[in-house]
Amino acid sequence: MLSKLILAAALAGACLHAETGYDAWLRYQSIEGALRVHVRATLPAVVTMLNDADPEAAARGELIRGLRGLTGRTLRAEGRIPRESAIVLGTLDELGRAAPQWNLGAPLPEDGYWLKTVIDHGARYTVVTASNPRGVMYGAFAMLRKIALGEPVDSLDERSTPYAPIRWVNQWDNLDGSIERGYGGRSIFWENGHARADLTRVADYGRLLASLGVNGCSINNVNANPRLLAAEMIPDIARIAAALRPWGVRVAVAVDFASPKILGGLDTFDPLDAGVAAWWKQKADELYRAIPDLAGFVLKADSEGRAGPSIYHRTHADAANVVARALAPHGGLLFYRGFVYDHHMDWRNPKNDRARAAYDNFHGLDGQFDSNAVIQIKNGPIDFQVREPASPLFAALEKTNQVIELQITQEYFGQAHHTVFLPRMWKATLDFDLHAGGASTPVKALAAGKTFHRPTGGFAGVANVGLDENWFGNHLSQANLYGFGRLAWDPDLTSRQIVEEWTRLTFGGDPKVDGTVAAIQLGSWRTYENYTGPLGLQGLTDITGNHYGVNVEASERNGWGQWHRADEKGVGMDRTVATGTGYIGQYPPTVARAWESLATCPDDLLLFLHHVPYTYVLHDGKTVIQYLYDSHYEGAEAVAGYAHQWKTLAGLVDERRYREVLAQLEYQAGQAVVWRDAVTEWFRRTSGIADARGRVGSYPGRFEAEAMHLDGYQVRDVVPAEDASGGKAVVCAAAECSAWLQFAGAAGWYTLRVQYFDQRNGISRYRLRVAGQWIDEWQADLLLPTVTLDSSSSTRRVIHGVALRPGDEIRIEGRPDGGEPAALDYLEIVPENQ
Amino acid sequence: MLSKLILAAALAGACLHAETGYDAWLRYQSIEGALRVHVRATLPAVVTMLNDADPEAAARGELIRGLRGLTGRTLRAEGRIPRESAIVLGTLDELGRAAPQWNLGAPLPEDGYWLKTVIDHGARYTVVTASNPRGVMYGAFAMLRKIALGEPVDSLDERSTPYAPIRWVNQWDNLDGSIERGYGGRSIFWENGHARADLTRVADYGRLLASLGVNGCSINNVNANPRLLAAEMIPDIARIAAALRPWGVRVAVAVDFASPKILGGLDTFDPLDAGVAAWWKQKADELYRAIPDLAGFVLKADSEGRAGPSIYHRTHADAANVVARALAPHGGLLFYRGFVYDHHMDWRNPKNDRARAAYDNFHGLDGQFDSNAVIQIKNGPIDFQVREPASPLFAALEKTNQVIELQITQEYFGQAHHTVFLPRMWKATLDFDLHAGGASTPVKALAAGKTFHRPTGGFAGVANVGLDENWFGNHLSQANLYGFGRLAWDPDLTSRQIVEEWTRLTFGGDPKVDGTVAAIQLGSWRTYENYTGPLGLQGLTDITGNHYGVNVEASERNGWGQWHRADEKGVGMDRTVATGTGYIGQYPPTVARAWESLATCPDDLLLFLHHVPYTYVLHDGKTVIQYLYDSHYEGAEAVAGYAHQWKTLAGLVDERRYREVLAQLEYQAGQAVVWRDAVTEWFRRTSGIADARGRVGSYPGRFEAEAMHLDGYQVRDVVPAEDASGGKAVVCAAAECSAWLQFAGAAGWYTLRVQYFDQRNGISRYRLRVAGQWIDEWQADLLLPTVTLDSSSSTRRVIHGVALRPGDEIRIEGRPDGGEPAALDYLEIVPENQ
Repeated sequence: MLSKLILAAALAGACLHAETGYDAWLRYQSIEGALRVHVRATLPAVVTMLNDADPEAAARGELIRGLRGLTGRTLRAEGRIPRESAIVLGTLDELGRAAPQWNLGAPLPEDGYWLKTVIDHGARYTVVTASNPRGVMYGAFAMLRKIALGEPVDSLDERSTPYAPIRWVNQWDNLDGSIERGYGGRSIFWENGHARADLTRVADYGRLLASLGVNGCSINNVNANPRLLAAEMIPDIARIAAALRPWGVRVAVAVDFASPKILGGLDTFDPLDAGVAAWWKQKADELYRAIPDLAGFVLKADSEGRAGPSIYHRTHADAANVVARALAPHGGLLFYRGFVYDHHMDWRNPKNDRARAAYDNFHGLDGQFDSNAVIQIKNGPIDFQVREPASPLFAALEKTNQVIELQITQEYFGQAHHTVFLPRMWKATLDFDLHAGGASTPVKALAAGKTFHRPTGGFAGVANVGLDENWFGNHLSQANLYGFGRLAWDPDLTSRQIVEEWTRLTFGGDPKVDGTVAAIQLGSWRTYENYTGPLGLQGLTDITGNHYGVNVEASERNGWGQWHRADEKGVGMDRTVATGTGYIGQYPPTVARAWESLATCPDDLLLFLHHVPYTYVLHDGKTVIQYLYDSHYEGAEAVAGYAHQWKTLAGLVDERRYREVLAQLEYQAGQAVVWRDAVTEWFRRTSGIADARGRVGSYPGRFEAEAMHLDGYQVRDVVPAEDASGGKAVVCAAAECSAWLQFAGAAGWYTLRVQYFDQRNGISRYRLRVAGQWIDEWQADLLLPTVTLDSSSSTRRVIHGVALRPGDEIRIEGRPDGGEPAALDYLEIVPENQ
Repeated sequence: MLSKLILAAALAGACLHAETGYDAWLRYQSIEGALRVHVRATLPAVVTMLNDADPEAAARGELIRGLRGLTGRTLRAEGRIPRESAIVLGTLDELGRAAPQWNLGAPLPEDGYWLKTVIDHGARYTVVTASNPRGVMYGAFAMLRKIALGEPVDSLDERSTPYAPIRWVNQWDNLDGSIERGYGGRSIFWENGHARADLTRVADYGRLLASLGVNGCSINNVNANPRLLAAEMIPDIARIAAALRPWGVRVAVAVDFASPKILGGLDTFDPLDAGVAAWWKQKADELYRAIPDLAGFVLKADSEGRAGPSIYHRTHADAANVVARALAPHGGLLFYRGFVYDHHMDWRNPKNDRARAAYDNFHGLDGQFDSNAVIQIKNGPIDFQVREPASPLFAALEKTNQVIELQITQEYFGQAHHTVFLPRMWKATLDFDLHAGGASTPVKALAAGKTFHRPTGGFAGVANVGLDENWFGNHLSQANLYGFGRLAWDPDLTSRQIVEEWTRLTFGGDPKVDGTVAAIQLGSWRTYENYTGPLGLQGLTDITGNHYGVNVEASERNGWGQWHRADEKGVGMDRTVATGTGYIGQYPPTVARAWESLATCPDDLLLFLHHVPYTYVLHDGKTVIQYLYDSHYEGAEAVAGYAHQWKTLAGLVDERRYREVLAQLEYQAGQAVVWRDAVTEWFRRTSGIADARGRVGSYPGRFEAEAMHLDGYQVRDVVPAEDASGGKAVVCAAAECSAWLQFAGAAGWYTLRVQYFDQRNGISRYRLRVAGQWIDEWQADLLLPTVTLDSSSSTRRVIHGVALRPGDEIRIEGRPDGGEPAALDYLEIVPENQ
């Protein structure tokens, strides 16, 4: 009996459908031209599967579906090796039995695959084999990828082995269907406290993950709801596990450490209490009866208000081990998050340092964790900031399993509204040599357990895909999930390799598209850093709020510890051993030496590690303050360039994705200006040092709304002041208000830019008139994460091609709605070239 | 105060939107490259309107909207001629007052426009002028069309005058929202017995019509509901008139001749009764009070069961005049349809001839019609068949106004499911010289009133657009409305000019798209004729039923008179004077002489005018019967070619329209095979003469469902027999049935074609398996006009790239639904080239 997948395949191949982004990089768009002729001439007609069970059956279904899309042909699904050419899927054991004459006995590591062409009695067999069925599936995806990328597949002998056994994603989905830090819609897993009735999206997510070699997925928020472990929820978890299982993706769950007390009714959750240990064991046994291949638990303890062992004066090792021992008999893993810090630190104490926390909490426990416990360590010591050094904890655990936690969801990277290609940043960390031992010890080798020969290790990516048709709310953000999976399989891939693969698979092979998208993606991290927090400042976002808009002072004077210590004289956290928090001393000596000294500390990390005056001169000869100014202008210009470059792809990218990406990039271009102006204004005001190039504080053609003639609009201070130009906006408390000015410039063609505030509450409407003529109308209907006047709501409307004459009245009318006051920041009038 | 249109313009230009076909040829897609640079450099910034009222205001709004789309610039709307370059809109009178120094006094006929560049004090004025405001609007549309087509507009001196004053569309919309012979969705005018609450679509239709110069629209079915004239409906008519008025489109209504009795409560509707005359007058007065610019009435009387003057033994002139006299004081016109015939004729009488009817009914009344009465004459003597001679009535009315009625909606042309470019056919009639007088008297000149110097005349097109987003249910069918409007303005345009204009405006200028679409459109009428009824046979459709599928005998043995008289010996209607119905004698002698003789009768009209044996040899040397065979194979091949050619436009046409047109052409390709096989089988069976090329009756690779192994399926005769291959189908009365065979051919790649029946009732599901493997799945969900097994429901599923091996079981499973029995006709197995 053939699986439903083959049927789905048939439908997908048979009817043309609009490109929505749903299929991501697994579109299997028809190949054309000479390549098509060649592939069709050499493609066998049979795909043989030696084991009629998933994931091998899923692999066969995918091969049939993929080749139908790519070549227009439906392969024959057979169970035996035919006397004609065929693709043959099977483990090494299965092949040894079915075709001993092929001598394919060479061992392969778990999950690794081997694509091998065998000629036998004149037939050509394309063998896709592995030690285990999941590896066979990975081989099938690899083969499809090769064909889609135009690589030859008629004479193969290629082995590929994953770099590490743990290649997981985490989903921070809540049982009510919301997702913490999710920007692609509601949960694909949960709805109203239970697993969704229709888990088609989960299965399709499993397919995407499988195509990359991802083999585990935790399915609920690390800030875990204890109810997840209730007996009534186990069938729900089992259903989700069943949806992912065909794709070789094992399910894990995040648990609350207080569960024995909250859920189990014990009077303690002390990890050394025998009753607590028994409770965890009984709960694990119950889960494994329903889900025998459960991958394990994820545990966030003693962090950001979560219960942990500290209440009983126990160690993290005590906590991890009591849970790990419950899982061990079943082969389950316990992921213990290293993201533990005090978020009520006294900011007045210059020796306090959140960056020290992970190392301080865990390095002393090295060797005390059970062999199935894994410390899950964020890439940097703070929290997914735009630039952080690699966490020193990677080098500090020699006798403890670890994985590196990377964030695919763009919590601090503009969420769904900005394009930032994160693999480039991840690569910087993964390839960074911590000098933890004699030879080269890059972070990837430490995290994978290679350096200290740990039994396990690898990669955990916080993905947080949602029900949006394109999974992330941003088409270009799909490249981050793709890049995560590819790096987890092979962290030696370059960023360029990844982005070129992804672009070709996702947008389909036109050289201009490939080149343009690659350029945008590869530049996007540096660009984002340039306008949000260069030189190691970290993202200057609203860290106590939505983690989206700009708020330079939100980092300071609170216990959260993301301090940058900017004051009127200088900026940066002194983390030196000599005069600072001593954080640098947590690194192995080679690294610590380089960073302790201003002379050898890289500029990109300067303000993360040192406090310097604004006039400090960087290696490139610029002062810190001028670099801050320049980089923000560069960043904003770069994003404007992205939108412009994307426009050159009109007609080369399918219509809907073209339009949606363009809208995203144009929004981002406006938002980069908001960041630019806020950050540069703040530093100019604070430092008292002018921009040598005269840009900051001087905006030719800009007219503040508060300085315009106002009919109904009222002036209001915006907090923080730098979030609005001039620190003020105008708001409308009536049914309709307007702001106007009389144009005094020369006659000509102009672009008008209206900066307004688009809050999440309400849909205000705006109109713009010139000399009485309605020129434009729009509504403030974006779903931005704020309900106030701030940089997160600050949004730009650009109106090109407006003819102005001296004396023209330019009037902006606003109609508030639902608590959103149709607010305005400013109008810019910019002359156009012909 | 500026109109809403300018605002709509702003929005349309400002945001990218998916191409749905809604904007048809008024897309104003951005022009690019050197042309853009040139237009922007020469485009003035001001558009001046000398009269702030519609339709001039609509023209200004359209210019602003269009130029914003084309060039990205928003022109300044001003009320006076500025001292800078400007586009100036105004009538000749208005310009004479505002700019007497320009001396633009030359008179222009009604609705004609003049585009004239005037240089004055160094400024360049692009003057768009006319005698009347509507003409100014036509000039604005013409100017936008020129820019969109890439023609220069910086040095203009171009006058254009419509060929005829009457350029109307008719809508056959019922008050309940259905449309008689409408294939583009429900009515844009009516819903539940009243005008729709939202008439946006009506206004947008008005804009489309105005862009072509169409100036009138009748808004209800010619088979008129008397209730339309009830007092309660007048506000509804007025609302519709108000929606069309800005676009210079005047509203007319179709009326029931029995209204004085049915609605007015009189005991008669005798046109010579004084009370009846008074009733019509009072009703007209009442209407004109609400709609002072009402264009008039359309009247279908004594036709297909409609009430008429014959019951009182009055003439059509009596009937027309009593209504015309009520309209005359208001300047209204009465359109009296010439489509009057007896549909209960005795088919056994060889002298009976429906084609004679219009002439017989009206030519004797010439001179008796009032000057505001117009006889509306269908292009041919029958009823919008694929090939008819021009109606002889055009030449027979010298002292009576006439218009030619053309059918834009594709009643007999495959409805929304086939692409047929009708202007090519219309041109054949319009340009046909009837030799009605000494000099050249083409139909267009007669219809326009030019030949006999009538006060009015022109064109009426039955459009029947509906609520479908693309108006017609078929993107390519929009060209028929475009072509109608353009020909009504200028019937001297060639088909190629029209299709090239339309394609460029509608699909946007890529040379490959332009060439491909033009080739498809220009060939499509001949192609459709080839597979539905060549040599003047008329469309061999189900004329007593849905007018869609094939039914060769439906024309015969009934009173409807569309007889082709095919029997075992020969085919064709003998309409000669010598031996036939004498119809040819209705034509002026030059034409009659040519057609009376077989030697000079054109082949295309042969069977319309003569009865000949099947072995009769055509001018090209083929026998009639072989021509019938050949043309049907040629037609079916041509449509397959259209689908193939369209596929080469992938990526050059926006995605949704590309996909929808491809689906339409692929369906049509299958349907052309149904026609081909039905017609050729019928003639082979009837004539007993084999196809010299051996195709008819021999279908290599075809396996009849009734000859397959059947699990649950039952064999059923199809009526008429030629509607199914072999005359039989299989139907499923169980929950699921299947039909299968064992493949006995050589191993290889094959295309499978499943011929099944997709009725309008129910959505059956089908699956196809090869050797147990699900290869394809589809559902019968098209909305075709039938609920039985016949040629209208016969539909094809094509599955490419199937690998077959000897002994394979090929099984088709069907699941009936809602009365649709998941029926099958046959399976074809066709080897593929590599």
